[in-house]
Amino acid sequence: MELKEKIDELKDYLSQYERLEQAIGIIYWDMRTNIPSKAGESRGKVLEYLSSEAFKMITSPKVGEFINDLTPYKDEMNKVEQRILQELEKNYNETKKIPQDRYVEYVGLCSNSEIAWEKAKDASDFEIFKPYLEKVVEFQKEFINYWGYKNNKYDTLLDKYELGLTTEKLDKIFSELKDGIIEVLNKVKGSKKKLNRDFLYGHFDEGKQKELSLFILEKIGFDMEAGRLDVSVHPFTTNFGNKDVRLTTNYHEDEFTSALFSTIHEGGHGIYEQNISDDLESTGLQQGASMAIHESQSRFYENILGRSKEFCSYLLPVAKEYFSDFKDVTLDEFYEAMNYVETSLIRTEADELTYGLHIIIRYEIEKELINGRITVNELKDTWNKKYKEYLGVEPKNDAEGILQDMHWSDGSFGYFPSYALGNLYGAQMFNTLLKEKPNVMEEVKNGNLTDITKWLNEKVHVHGAIYTPEELIKNITGEELNAKYFIDYLKNKYYSLYDVE
Amino acid sequence: MELKEKIDELKDYLSQYERLEQAIGIIYWDMRTNIPSKAGESRGKVLEYLSSEAFKMITSPKVGEFINDLTPYKDEMNKVEQRILQELEKNYNETKKIPQDRYVEYVGLCSNSEIAWEKAKDASDFEIFKPYLEKVVEFQKEFINYWGYKNNKYDTLLDKYELGLTTEKLDKIFSELKDGIIEVLNKVKGSKKKLNRDFLYGHFDEGKQKELSLFILEKIGFDMEAGRLDVSVHPFTTNFGNKDVRLTTNYHEDEFTSALFSTIHEGGHGIYEQNISDDLESTGLQQGASMAIHESQSRFYENILGRSKEFCSYLLPVAKEYFSDFKDVTLDEFYEAMNYVETSLIRTEADELTYGLHIIIRYEIEKELINGRITVNELKDTWNKKYKEYLGVEPKNDAEGILQDMHWSDGSFGYFPSYALGNLYGAQMFNTLLKEKPNVMEEVKNGNLTDITKWLNEKVHVHGAIYTPEELIKNITGEELNAKYFIDYLKNKYYSLYDVE
Repeated sequence: MELKEKIDELKDYLSQYERLEQAIGIIYWDMRTNIPSKAGESRGKVLEYLSSEAFKMITSPKVGEFINDLTPYKDEMNKVEQRILQELEKNYNETKKIPQDRYVEYVGLCSNSEIAWEKAKDASDFEIFKPYLEKVVEFQKEFINYWGYKNNKYDTLLDKYELGLTTEKLDKIFSELKDGIIEVLNKVKGSKKKLNRDFLYGHFDEGKQKELSLFILEKIGFDMEAGRLDVSVHPFTTNFGNKDVRLTTNYHEDEFTSALFSTIHEGGHGIYEQNISDDLESTGLQQGASMAIHESQSRFYENILGRSKEFCSYLLPVAKEYFSDFKDVTLDEFYEAMNYVETSLIRTEADELTYGLHIIIRYEIEKELINGRITVNELKDTWNKKYKEYLGVEPKNDAEGILQDMHWSDGSFGYFPSYALGNLYGAQMFNTLLKEKPNVMEEVKNGNLTDITKWLNEKVHVHGAIYTPEELIKNITGEELNAKYFIDYLKNKYYSLYDVE
Repeated sequence: MELKEKIDELKDYLSQYERLEQAIGIIYWDMRTNIPSKAGESRGKVLEYLSSEAFKMITSPKVGEFINDLTPYKDEMNKVEQRILQELEKNYNETKKIPQDRYVEYVGLCSNSEIAWEKAKDASDFEIFKPYLEKVVEFQKEFINYWGYKNNKYDTLLDKYELGLTTEKLDKIFSELKDGIIEVLNKVKGSKKKLNRDFLYGHFDEGKQKELSLFILEKIGFDMEAGRLDVSVHPFTTNFGNKDVRLTTNYHEDEFTSALFSTIHEGGHGIYEQNISDDLESTGLQQGASMAIHESQSRFYENILGRSKEFCSYLLPVAKEYFSDFKDVTLDEFYEAMNYVETSLIRTEADELTYGLHIIIRYEIEKELINGRITVNELKDTWNKKYKEYLGVEPKNDAEGILQDMHWSDGSFGYFPSYALGNLYGAQMFNTLLKEKPNVMEEVKNGNLTDITKWLNEKVHVHGAIYTPEELIKNITGEELNAKYFIDYLKNKYYSLYDVE
């Protein structure tokens, strides 16, 4: 057997699998953006069917043969080939452990559960969603039993999103992060300087917000010929290859920043996917290195870039063209409003400083839930208590509390930490970027983001999943991931904003 | 073997097939409404993959077994079961004759061809589309050779859309229809009465047109919880089961009627699909009886109902709420403008009277093309000559000529006659409706369409494809299809409108 021949044969197989996965992706996207309310059940069956076909493909004896045939050649393989094999093996072994009928039932459950979550959120009534969530959690626990675990059941889920991540590691990182945030937060709270953001509230026409969102999206480098921007209850990004990357946002006419920064955030994910190399088609590696690396890009564009003084300097005159309310606003006022710190209820609208606390709350809850130390019944109380304790706020209703995020509805337990890790990865990369290109932020004032996007393209995007997150951050910054850079970044930014030190 | 058991087993199988077909349908819909321009090629591969899976399912030896096992029980079966078997056998035999690789290549070609047609239409340049069309026509000819034919190759295509239809039958019907139209048209042309429709042109805000379209759609009975209305270059209807029926329209801000009547037309298709019985799920019969019967519904809503004086009487005050330009328009003026006769270039915007001539032109061209008597190269000239001859008009460019319809881009040769037959079926049904419910049109003045829609639901929609078109029209009207009722309808309507007799 020629190695190249066998690799080509595998790529053919993976190409079929990718087509099927793309079909599933399109149908999910449609379900979240377009589906008429009565079609949910019927669509669940379509997804069940396609997912069971995908399940068959990935657990097929054919895949076992590929693995057996290729493994002896590992040392002759280049990096990409090695990673193809590694990902294939991981996917095969993990999926094979789950009985097909259980998997298919789970897929059907999730599609109904997402719809129930949407209804529940609309009605602000957790009870509507609870029975679905209970089943989703039971499935997660069942799957963990199939997959196995060492010290902590939740580790098995963390590992799905960030290879090798454990509660042990995360407890340490999050403890450091929490201390850092609290330290800065206390100084901010003690500052005599009060920022103002009143002018961000008023009436902002949805049509104009949409135009502005699209304008900024193109500005930061998102290619509208290889993507779209739509509306959904919970903003998200999905993609079918690197030529069809779809973002959603959610417009609120009473507020200026929410939709815009959701768009920029999802735009960051989108730019990542659009710039992954064409060569990685049909390899299983045409995706982000991990969810945390993905979030590092979205949160980089949203915060490090999007809420920087330099970007505000570019954005303000543009915003004034759309909304005359801003006509007397100065750059300092605009920048301060964009970075107004307030402990609040909604994660996606939290400021950059307190955001991490929202994640730590979810991390702690998920850990307890998955290990059976709390039940779905106790979830709402636990949530509300933790918000009171960590952020000093209490939800007035389920929509702004336990129902705010859609992640649990499709079983994405273990995902939330990625957001906080993304902040750390992003700040660490930013530190290197500034060392390599000290004047890069100056150009942002003129709306020229090319240098930044190009740097991220070369360092991160183009490689897809060729490198593990560990390898990638080491390649880029020369160091392992650590919380220091993000905490330093917060201190620099917020001490100056709030005149403290 | 128990008959019921075997039928249930077949239904299980068909249910899987339906899920796959629905997935394909969703992806096609997405391709026509949402896909970013760079993703066409990649999406073609997804469609190729899914279509080849569908091909495998429908030509599987398993289907052959079902047919063999069930055939001996034909006499014990009820009507629905007999039709399930009949449709299955037809589909199986037809599909099996085509080599799988040729079929898959054809699917890929069509998805690229549709994209090319859209580009060509945008650029008004037939040359962009021609190479694709040539290949599509070659494939159609190749498929006809697999399927076989008796007297005329084009019969094989006609039969796909209308079981048993032949050029021999159609030549006769269309000759009668043509004579009828010309007779009325000559009187209209000779009339001293000139109608006015100037007020239908001006500026009509797209947003308002959309609101009005949605309002009218619900009014005529389309269920927005089981469907959608979107925008595409060429309006169409597609559905994934009876709970997700998607219409598109196309707004032109300089004109009032185009989008509205496209919406009502597609709405007629949509109401049909939404009201097919739930019991026909997983039988292969949850679809219209034929394309002509489908068009009978869409053109009934669009013309017989939508352009009736009674409906105009309801519509005018509603339209006045949206568009102040209409404030001084009287009912007579409005009704006359809606039914203004003018020989023109664009089929979808043709008046009800001359519409049939557009179809007859396409029918004659397709017949020649499929039988190899003209080539794709000669198509444009032939088109332009026939428009000159039949309608006295000449396209100034390809977009308003040969490129106006998308049908040829996905190989729907043999479809066009359905529109004209739909007019005949519709008028024949209308005649019966008026006999059974003489006052039904009075209620329309108040915007009450319930009786009409209920009658069509019971007589046509609910049955799906249980009856052949022949059986259906006989059941409803007691007669075979004939052109008399439509021609009488045209005479009544237009002689009165134009004060001739």
